[in-house]
Amino acid sequence: MIKTDILIIGAGPTGLFTVFEAGLLKLKTHLIDALPQPGGQCAEIYPKKPIYDVPAFPEILAGDLVKNLMEQIKPFQPGFTLGERAETIEKKEDGSFVVTTNKGTKHQAPVVAIAGGLGSFEPRKPPISNIADFEDKGVSYFIKDPEVFRDKRVVISGGGDSALDWAIFLTDVASEVVLVHRRNEFRGALDSVEKVSELSKLGKIELITDAEVVGLNGRNDLEKVVIRHKDLAREEEFREIDYFIPLFGLSPKLGPMANWGLEIEKNAIKVDNSYDYQTNIPGIYAIGDVNTYKGKLKLILSGFHEAAIMCQSAYQRIHPNKKYVLKYTTVGGVEGFDGSKKQAKREVVQSIG
Amino acid sequence: MIKTDILIIGAGPTGLFTVFEAGLLKLKTHLIDALPQPGGQCAEIYPKKPIYDVPAFPEILAGDLVKNLMEQIKPFQPGFTLGERAETIEKKEDGSFVVTTNKGTKHQAPVVAIAGGLGSFEPRKPPISNIADFEDKGVSYFIKDPEVFRDKRVVISGGGDSALDWAIFLTDVASEVVLVHRRNEFRGALDSVEKVSELSKLGKIELITDAEVVGLNGRNDLEKVVIRHKDLAREEEFREIDYFIPLFGLSPKLGPMANWGLEIEKNAIKVDNSYDYQTNIPGIYAIGDVNTYKGKLKLILSGFHEAAIMCQSAYQRIHPNKKYVLKYTTVGGVEGFDGSKKQAKREVVQSIG
Ligand SMILES: Cc1cc2nc3c(=O)[nH]c(=O)nc-3n(C[C@H](O)[C@H](O)[C@H](O)COP(=O)(O)OP(=O)(O)OC[C@H]3O[C@@H](n4cnc5c(N)ncnc54)[C@H](O)[C@@H]3O)c2cc1C
Ligand SMILES: Cc1cc2nc3c(=O)[nH]c(=O)nc-3n(C[C@H](O)[C@H](O)[C@H](O)COP(=O)(O)OP(=O)(O)OC[C@H]3O[C@@H](n4cnc5c(N)ncnc54)[C@H](O)[C@@H]3O)c2cc1C
Repeated sequence: MIKTDILIIGAGPTGLFTVFEAGLLKLKTHLIDALPQPGGQCAEIYPKKPIYDVPAFPEILAGDLVKNLMEQIKPFQPGFTLGERAETIEKKEDGSFVVTTNKGTKHQAPVVAIAGGLGSFEPRKPPISNIADFEDKGVSYFIKDPEVFRDKRVVISGGGDSALDWAIFLTDVASEVVLVHRRNEFRGALDSVEKVSELSKLGKIELITDAEVVGLNGRNDLEKVVIRHKDLAREEEFREIDYFIPLFGLSPKLGPMANWGLEIEKNAIKVDNSYDYQTNIPGIYAIGDVNTYKGKLKLILSGFHEAAIMCQSAYQRIHPNKKYVLKYTTVGGVEGFDGSKKQAKREVVQSIG
Repeated sequence: MIKTDILIIGAGPTGLFTVFEAGLLKLKTHLIDALPQPGGQCAEIYPKKPIYDVPAFPEILAGDLVKNLMEQIKPFQPGFTLGERAETIEKKEDGSFVVTTNKGTKHQAPVVAIAGGLGSFEPRKPPISNIADFEDKGVSYFIKDPEVFRDKRVVISGGGDSALDWAIFLTDVASEVVLVHRRNEFRGALDSVEKVSELSKLGKIELITDAEVVGLNGRNDLEKVVIRHKDLAREEEFREIDYFIPLFGLSPKLGPMANWGLEIEKNAIKVDNSYDYQTNIPGIYAIGDVNTYKGKLKLILSGFHEAAIMCQSAYQRIHPNKKYVLKYTTVGGVEGFDGSKKQAKREVVQSIG
């Protein structure tokens, strides 16, 4: 059982900044995310695109925003359960909550902050009838740890940035990289498309375009994929492989949280913004894109504000008898749980002459 | 009469970011600030100190935060009335407001956003009975344009960072710089104290410590200051000068806005945070440190969120019949009023092979 003060579901920008605001209040945090990496939409959908409306950044790449947030929260040593989806919640007699993931990991905390964005990102799966049989037995929709593919034969399918980028990356890891795409055109960053083209010429990526993976075979683990060409005159190809990685993008689903007894409106969780972004279940808060209230804006900067407000309320819930007085970081500094301390230089009093 | 869409009172971080959010909605803005420079508390009180809780900045100097905001809003060409305090407000028949400053400048807009922070910063004045007679006739509490002091004889008094920094700066501008301070100890950044000491040894700053300016003389404009030493055995000194600049800090005062018919609570303006940070007078909003509502946090990040929400409501007020659909800057780009356009690179569709 993982125990913490504030259990944060969703490691997007909102969830990440919650770690910082909680840390200032000396509250510990743990994050669960269905994705294998932190950053939410910014990391998953548009890491290389610039955002222009994050305050005081005339321009920042979404990926850098996540990097900066990770650096900012580092002193508070948050825990992470990545690549697992929060599935069920249960209220204990002592008022705390236990959240269990689809892989069975259990987490307990007196406060739950749902920062689930548009929901957990679920992979779009290709329509291969027996694909579920091979999940975790050769079929991967995410790449969590590329080392898994060391010296293995992999087939990637897809035509967007993820497919291109991972195909490039895995040429240095896997023994064989095959990229299968329905069309002969790829939709991705120019340099990725060019790089794949180049690696294909060098024989490091085998490119099979105008084709689709339509079947999977294997006794227990995946052993072969069946590739069908658009040009039906060509025969179906059977390929012996170790891994099949379909990368057709992710689509977010509010998913299991829709069944937690929370008030849902417009596919989002209703909160009371007139105070602290708490849901209809006391002790459960919803912040960032996942919540809704009159006037709600699904903006990154709003998630930040909601996180700060929410942590104050959580503090009072966790320490009902302590009074917390807001201190400016500039004045009080930041004391990390890792022993680090950041503080503005003090003014000096010095004689002259 | 200066006309605009949203008249912003206060050019602190909240007021500045309002320009950006309004600009995204194609609304024009004009800012009034009592201080001679934008940035509010960040620029006036602690420009050289780091802030640690601005989201995605593990550390940023308050002065740099202001610089970044100024760069971010530049494409929207806001107007500025600086060094003037918003004094009165009047509602016109067409529903718009006219705000007049203490110097008589008039501004008209259908929406007023009060981002006045702790209030307008008013200089702490030394207790010299006739000082008011020489204001703008040789006595300056602010330095708006240092060129005013070119080849003039100036006496600065004070012992903090402003007094030290301006004394240093003016050695390159004024013909004579005298720094008078009550004590022999200065409270300022170490390098400023050292620099003043050095310039004093070089004869570029005349340092008179353990002394105070106690009198001002002149027929019409200021001509002389009277300096009294702590050591009463020493005679009072008369100095012929052109300018006397007392820099004893600024203290914020809600001031004239307290009499505008707005609901005031805890020296702040009450707003309805359950929706749009509007005050009890429709069309007048209060955002940032100047407002109060249940759970209010006086944080920079909260001002940013309040600005974004407020602009949406202002848009509806200004364009009651248009429906605005929020567009992400990453997707829609930023179209400056100056003709500039920022936009994420488009994905490319490219054939391989
Ligand atoms: C193309 C694009 C451009 C954008 N441009 C801008 C812009 O310019 N400015 C701006 O302010 N915003 C922009 N946005 C929106 C911005 O990305 C979101 O507002 C922001 O990501 C919300 O952050 P969040 O942390 O609330 O949620 P998210 O970033 O969505 O993160 C939520 C996380 O929660 C996880 N999760 C959800 N449910 C579960 C569960 N049950 N178990 C485990 N994990 C779960 C998800 O996997 C996800 O990682 C843009 C969005 C897109 C798609
Ligand atoms: C030492 C110190 C350290 C701080 N550290 C932090 C920190 O670490 N993190 C954090 O988030 N916050 C911090 N703060 C608070 C932060 O500075 C404020 O929250 C922020 O400045 C509020 O911005 P604002 O734009 O709402 O108001 P302000 O910055 O106060 O700006 C308001 C402006 O309005 C002007 N104004 C007011 N009335 C009038 C009028 N009638 N006419 C014309 N102009 C007027 C004022 O002159 C002023 O320039 C700190 C503050 C101080 C003093």
